[in-house]
Amino acid sequence: MEKQQGYRVAVVGATGAVGEKMLETLEKKDFPIESLTLLSSSRSAGKSITFKGEELIVKEATPESFEGIQIALFSAGGSVSKSLAHEAVKRGAVVIDNTSAFRMDKDVPLVVPEVNEADIANHQGIIANPNCSTIQMVAALKPIQDAFGMTRVIVSTYQAVSGAGTIASEELRQQSQAFLSGEELNPEILPVKGDEKHYPIAFNALPQIDTFQDNGYTFEEMKMINETKKILHSDALHVAATCVRLPFFTSHAESVYIEVENEDLQVSDVQQVLSQAEGIVLEDDPSNQQYPTPLSAAGRSEVFVGRVRKDPDNPKGFHLWVVSDNLLKGAAWNSVQIAESLIKNKLL
Amino acid sequence: MEKQQGYRVAVVGATGAVGEKMLETLEKKDFPIESLTLLSSSRSAGKSITFKGEELIVKEATPESFEGIQIALFSAGGSVSKSLAHEAVKRGAVVIDNTSAFRMDKDVPLVVPEVNEADIANHQGIIANPNCSTIQMVAALKPIQDAFGMTRVIVSTYQAVSGAGTIASEELRQQSQAFLSGEELNPEILPVKGDEKHYPIAFNALPQIDTFQDNGYTFEEMKMINETKKILHSDALHVAATCVRLPFFTSHAESVYIEVENEDLQVSDVQQVLSQAEGIVLEDDPSNQQYPTPLSAAGRSEVFVGRVRKDPDNPKGFHLWVVSDNLLKGAAWNSVQIAESLIKNKLL
Repeated sequence: MEKQQGYRVAVVGATGAVGEKMLETLEKKDFPIESLTLLSSSRSAGKSITFKGEELIVKEATPESFEGIQIALFSAGGSVSKSLAHEAVKRGAVVIDNTSAFRMDKDVPLVVPEVNEADIANHQGIIANPNCSTIQMVAALKPIQDAFGMTRVIVSTYQAVSGAGTIASEELRQQSQAFLSGEELNPEILPVKGDEKHYPIAFNALPQIDTFQDNGYTFEEMKMINETKKILHSDALHVAATCVRLPFFTSHAESVYIEVENEDLQVSDVQQVLSQAEGIVLEDDPSNQQYPTPLSAAGRSEVFVGRVRKDPDNPKGFHLWVVSDNLLKGAAWNSVQIAESLIKNKLL
Repeated sequence: MEKQQGYRVAVVGATGAVGEKMLETLEKKDFPIESLTLLSSSRSAGKSITFKGEELIVKEATPESFEGIQIALFSAGGSVSKSLAHEAVKRGAVVIDNTSAFRMDKDVPLVVPEVNEADIANHQGIIANPNCSTIQMVAALKPIQDAFGMTRVIVSTYQAVSGAGTIASEELRQQSQAFLSGEELNPEILPVKGDEKHYPIAFNALPQIDTFQDNGYTFEEMKMINETKKILHSDALHVAATCVRLPFFTSHAESVYIEVENEDLQVSDVQQVLSQAEGIVLEDDPSNQQYPTPLSAAGRSEVFVGRVRKDPDNPKGFHLWVVSDNLLKGAAWNSVQIAESLIKNKLL
């Protein structure tokens, strides 16, 4: 058998929470790699990381770092993407960007492969990976939209701290220990590292993810609203979101209300479509207390759906509970899927 | 000044999570008491509890325990209420019942004093205290319903473990410690003590509160749906609920979507009405990151509302974030308020 061609890959933000999962995923899925370049800010440069048994040194990302790179996976924050993604493209790389820097740009496809893989073909050097909370929701909703038509989405999220980075996970761990020991909590990171006020996350719930916009919504909520419409190719779809940070480490959960076009639709119809959808696992058997939870979804790359039920009053309304590992399908795994699609469709 | 008349009060379930808060509330609000009888199951009988500096012994609740009692506050579970509430009424007591045993009975007023105090006048011996998650929601929604008309409610809850009793709080504490120490979790209580399966609550989220009904909704969700319509006197109101148990000890939070009758209504109109409503504290200033959280509401008897905003697509839609201490306004404080109203309106 002919040896599969390998690619020259760079991971920007290799030492972060998503970067770590990106490397785990490339290794686990045996992604075809000819050379792997690990990049980061100057702060983390010099660290060593083991990949497939080989020790690699993380280098500071500069425009020149991308010479000869074919695929650049960015997850080092929006400002790094804004300053370096175009430099990578200029040098011939295709950038898969995990930040919000370019997601709403008209020229940048925003892609969840199970949902809108065809959009990748329109790329002009940059492909955006959607926000973690958006990815799992649209993955669950697309099969329903295709089968039955969908007019409306209202989501309330239950989001893990790892979405705010390794430092947020560390803060939850430290605060939880302090709380249980009766010690004082000293919040410094959450809800938003760069924002003015910080609140305890241990044994608490914070209805703020990312900064507030002028309209009273947080940026996280606006991401879910705008990205969902873009990925599902439907400006007419009504979408509203409330995003809440909670004291668990991994996986986002979502209570999703949707309205479909057909009032005769039954729970079993929705379950049937979800059970056959790519990348979706239906875990929905109330009589056996079966439903997904953040802990049960952690470490897995699928999107789990349970608690499918019809609205008690609106025959077009349905409720779902959607859970997925925010660092895998919500970030690393979706990015690697995009890279695999680029290769498969000869779009590099 | 004439000394205020005191009443002969019994607390049934005095050693439980709500019972404890009931006694704290009676003491703190200086409720007029001539005699206080503490009752429980045989299991907890014999324990001693200090009330206003005096040591009281908890006795086993029997029909005869209620001889001479004027006000009986029940919070020892539905089966205790079902077997003893009528015995108490037969002996002349008015029962304020904190369980779900009688809430939907036509003859039993279901009361949140700020919302439907007048219903107390129709009591026939038993007045029901609504479910904790219902109380805080209807307290926030009633002023909006009165001022603007309301047609629809969709709620996703974020509920504290103390709603499942002291044993559930203890389970969260033990599991959290075990998780942080890298030890195995052995769930035995949550989501529902008497149900077949148990899942870890530490650093997790469980989309099941109370047992599942045949329609796929949990009993907690059906309580929110049915009780809300009864308390707000509106069978036509559309109500849907998703109830989720989360790893914090105190206060329930709720992401509430409502539809009002008037599409010209603005966020400031809703805020204005809430800021003047009895028992409500508006904490809503996104520009200063001001919003309520479970920790900030714990130990306080009001209902806190923040994150008021208009739906991005539906001009009749609004979103709110409602938080309150589930053991105080959600249980003990609301029960004591009902008792105060009975006295004030000479309904004993």
